[in-house]
Amino acid sequence: MSDAHAARRERLSEYCSASGADAALISKPANVQYLTGCAPCGAALLLTRERALLALPGELPPDDSGEHPFAAELPHLAAEPGQDPTEAAAAVAARLGVSDLVVEEHDLTVSRHRAIAEAAPGVRLGDVNLAVERLRVVKDEQELAGLRIAAEIGDQALGELLESILVGRTERHLAMELERRMVDHGADRAGYPVSVGTGSHSGRSDHRPTDRRVEEGDFLTVSLGAQYRGYSVCTTRTFVIGAAPATWQVELHRLVFDAQRAGREALAPGVLGSEPDRAAREVLRAGGYQEERPQPFGHGVGLEVREAPQLGPAEMGKLDNRVPVTVGPGVHLPGRGGVRIEDTLVVRPLEEGGPELLTITTKELLAL
Amino acid sequence: MSDAHAARRERLSEYCSASGADAALISKPANVQYLTGCAPCGAALLLTRERALLALPGELPPDDSGEHPFAAELPHLAAEPGQDPTEAAAAVAARLGVSDLVVEEHDLTVSRHRAIAEAAPGVRLGDVNLAVERLRVVKDEQELAGLRIAAEIGDQALGELLESILVGRTERHLAMELERRMVDHGADRAGYPVSVGTGSHSGRSDHRPTDRRVEEGDFLTVSLGAQYRGYSVCTTRTFVIGAAPATWQVELHRLVFDAQRAGREALAPGVLGSEPDRAAREVLRAGGYQEERPQPFGHGVGLEVREAPQLGPAEMGKLDNRVPVTVGPGVHLPGRGGVRIEDTLVVRPLEEGGPELLTITTKELLAL
Repeated sequence: MSDAHAARRERLSEYCSASGADAALISKPANVQYLTGCAPCGAALLLTRERALLALPGELPPDDSGEHPFAAELPHLAAEPGQDPTEAAAAVAARLGVSDLVVEEHDLTVSRHRAIAEAAPGVRLGDVNLAVERLRVVKDEQELAGLRIAAEIGDQALGELLESILVGRTERHLAMELERRMVDHGADRAGYPVSVGTGSHSGRSDHRPTDRRVEEGDFLTVSLGAQYRGYSVCTTRTFVIGAAPATWQVELHRLVFDAQRAGREALAPGVLGSEPDRAAREVLRAGGYQEERPQPFGHGVGLEVREAPQLGPAEMGKLDNRVPVTVGPGVHLPGRGGVRIEDTLVVRPLEEGGPELLTITTKELLAL
Repeated sequence: MSDAHAARRERLSEYCSASGADAALISKPANVQYLTGCAPCGAALLLTRERALLALPGELPPDDSGEHPFAAELPHLAAEPGQDPTEAAAAVAARLGVSDLVVEEHDLTVSRHRAIAEAAPGVRLGDVNLAVERLRVVKDEQELAGLRIAAEIGDQALGELLESILVGRTERHLAMELERRMVDHGADRAGYPVSVGTGSHSGRSDHRPTDRRVEEGDFLTVSLGAQYRGYSVCTTRTFVIGAAPATWQVELHRLVFDAQRAGREALAPGVLGSEPDRAAREVLRAGGYQEERPQPFGHGVGLEVREAPQLGPAEMGKLDNRVPVTVGPGVHLPGRGGVRIEDTLVVRPLEEGGPELLTITTKELLAL
C-alpha cells in the first residue's frame, strides 16, 4: 500500500500548490490514515512540497507485534509529553521556512488551532477546505475490496442471528451478540454501535438498544456494519417475529421495500446526489408517508461510516463512478414501530452492470 | 436528578457572571450531560442569567420509550436541517440581547466557532475556560453511587473470566467476551475498549487486542471499565497463565504491586496531584525501572473515562475530597511483556477511612 499512500499524498500536495500553500498539516484521524496507512491515534501529518513527516503523540511503542508499518515508511518524530503532535509538526514547518500552512479547520478545536499558531510564529495559517475528504470520495480497488469484505462479515453475522431464537431476548443482548459475531468473523470492530429496535422501537434510524425484549408479532429492525481494515459499511433489515405478520406490517414493509429499490435504481454516475433520496421519498409519499424535516436516506461510506457525499435533498453534487453509498429509507409510526431497509452499494455505470450491491442479505419480509 | 442539574447550572451561571459573561454556550457532550441529565447526541445548552435552553440536532424522537426526560425538564428547540445546534442556540442568544457569550474553545472546531460567530452577529465570543470540567472534578453522592456500580460490574465480568479456560483464546475474543459480560451485568457499555494483552503484549497501557492466543507461561494483562448511567471506571490486572510463574514474573509483579500500593496510599485531600505518581514511580525506580518519557500513572474518571485531574508528574493542583481517580503504574519489557495494575479510588480524608477502593478484584498474582 505504500505506493498508493504516496500517490494520495502527491495529489494533496498538488492541491496545496494550486491553492498557494507551501504545506498542509493533517490532523483528522481518518485523513491521516488515508494518507499514511496505519497511524497511531493522535498522529498528525505534515506535508511540504519536498517531504512528509508524521508527528506522533509519544515514543513509538516497541513493535515486536509488527503493528506499525508506518515507522519504516515515513520519517516521524515524537511530540514532547503534554505537547499535541500538531504543535510539534507546526514547529517543524516553521523551521523549514514554510510561509503558508493549511490546516483542517473542520477538525481542529479553537484551542488546538491557537497552539499551532503559537508553535509556528510567522507562518500564515489557512484552511485545507476538506481537500482530503474530497480525495477520499472515489475509492480505489483496494478500498472497494475492504468494503466488500466488511459487507460479507455483516451478512454472516446477520445470517447467524436469523437462525437463532429471538423471542424473549433484549435489544441490548442481540446487539452485543451481533457485534461479537462480526469480530469473530474478522472485523476490526463494529463500524458503529449495532442498533436493534423491536416493537415500537422498530424502523427508527437512530435507535439505541434498550432492555426491551423481542415479542411475538413485533417488527424487528437491525442495523449493523462491520469495520474491516478501517473500512465500514451499513446494512439495515426489518423482520417480523412470529409466523403471521399483520396486514399493516406486510403493507408497510412492501412500501419501504419499493422505496428502497427506487433509491437503489436511481444510483448512477453523473446523477445528482439528491436523486436516490428523492426517488425513494416519492414512493413513500405516494403511499401516504411524508416527513416534515426529512433526514437524508443515504450517505457515503469508507474510513468513516458516514462521509461524503450526503445523499439527501440538499446534496448539489453529482455522483461519481466507484463511490460507495448507502440507500436506507424507512418509516416509523410513533407507538407502533416501523420499517427501515438499507444497503451499501458502489456506484457503477450501466455498462458495468449498474450499482454493485455489497450487502446481500435478503430484504424480503422474513417471519422469524 | 432535576434539582441537582439545576444546581449545577446555577454554579456555572455564577462563574459566568463573575467572569463578566452574559451567557454560556456549552457544546461538549459530557458537559451538556452534566448540566442537563440525559441529552441526545449533538445537543447544545445555552445558559443565560434568566434561562436555560437546549438546542437539539433535530425533532425530538417520539418518546414512547420515555428515554428523554429532558424534554419535560428544559425548554428546547430543534435546529434546522443542516444547522448545528450551537448555531441555533447562538442565534437565540443574539435575539435575547446577549453581549458577551462564552463558548467551549477546547471543544468547538474552528469551523463551528466561525459559524457561531456568523449566527450571532454583534455578540462578543469568549472562552468558558474549562469551567464545567472544573465543576465536574468533585463528585456528589449520586455520581459516586454510579461509579460504585460501574466498578462492581467490571469486577463481576473479570471474576467470571477468571473462572473460564483462557489458554488458546485470542486477545480479541477475550476482550469481546468481557465487553458482553459487562453489558449483561447492566453496563450501558464498556467505558473504553477493553484491552487484553498476553505474552509480549502484557503490561502495555495502550494495547489494542490482536489475534495472538493466550499461551502457557504468559503474563495476561486485562484492562476494562464499565460505563453505568454515563459514569466509567478503570481496572487493570495482570495474571500469569499456568501453575508455575517464572521468577522474573513473580518479582516484576511484586514490584508493580508495591508501586501501585504506594500510589494508592499517597491519595489524600490536600495532597499534590503529582504525588501518587511520584510515590509509585519511586518504587519502580528503586527496582531498576525508569521511563524516559513517563506517561502519567493516573487520572480522574467520571462522565469521561479520562478527565481532570491528571495524576502525572506535571500536575500542579491539589487533590480534593470526593474526587475519583485511577492509580495504575506498570512496567513493560519490550519483547517479554510486563505488568500493569490499576484501581479506581475515591479520595477521602483519613478520618473517613482514607481512599475508598471501588475496584475490588484481587491484585495478587493469580496463576490461572
